[in-house]
Amino acid sequence: MWSFIKKYQNIADIMRDKGLAKVGDGLVNLCYSLAKSEVLGEATGEKVRDSVLAKALRATPVYHNISRRTDSGVAADAYEAVVAYLWLSGKTTIESMVSSLVKQLDINSKTSRKQEAQAAARAFQILLEELMVFLPSSST
Amino acid sequence: MWSFIKKYQNIADIMRDKGLAKVGDGLVNLCYSLAKSEVLGEATGEKVRDSVLAKALRATPVYHNISRRTDSGVAADAYEAVVAYLWLSGKTTIESMVSSLVKQLDINSKTSRKQEAQAAARAFQILLEELMVFLPSSST
Repeated sequence: MWSFIKKYQNIADIMRDKGLAKVGDGLVNLCYSLAKSEVLGEATGEKVRDSVLAKALRATPVYHNISRRTDSGVAADAYEAVVAYLWLSGKTTIESMVSSLVKQLDINSKTSRKQEAQAAARAFQILLEELMVFLPSSST
Repeated sequence: MWSFIKKYQNIADIMRDKGLAKVGDGLVNLCYSLAKSEVLGEATGEKVRDSVLAKALRATPVYHNISRRTDSGVAADAYEAVVAYLWLSGKTTIESMVSSLVKQLDINSKTSRKQEAQAAARAFQILLEELMVFLPSSST
């Protein structure tokens, strides 16, 4: 379906792709909005902060495919690129990603922003751990 | 699938729903990123500006369901809420919306930002015209 996806040799190439990260930004925000809406029982939405996605990525083995001293922006882009790649290549669906996030997202209408960020980072970590198996083999 | 969607009596209620607009924000940005990626032949992404969605909405009959003097932010929210409602209730798919946008989005790597905004507004107008038939009847 998506004619613009390139062939990638390894995970590192995917994680460095700024264009994929841009698609992934929209995808991650949409999935989080849907998951939060499901958990709270009413439509709502939120932009997921870089720090949340960076924390999620750093807690998984996927992180070792990028160079050590990356700031939150670069790590978040890498997370977004990986998720975009997996969705665009049909390895997962929005429904499936939202379902995974919902299971972990232990928040309610009284949860503080800080607590929500922690819950979100954990939920995105587990989502990536579930999706890791579909990535091409590591370059390392 | 989506347990959080409310029952809406008419279009005006949908267009006023701030929560739906938040979900729609992510959805519209993702669809535009995918359409632009398809047209340019490489992954890329963009946040669609309020002025673009406001212009698209104002060019369709759907606009008459909200009060006259709305600023761009309110009109863009109304556009996003309508699209979110239609997608969440299964009347359209991301693939179908992207396909509609791609057909109208006459841009290339040299198109100026201003020209792209015009092309995008037109593409979002036609998308909404195509989707209008799936909306509940007007309250007016």
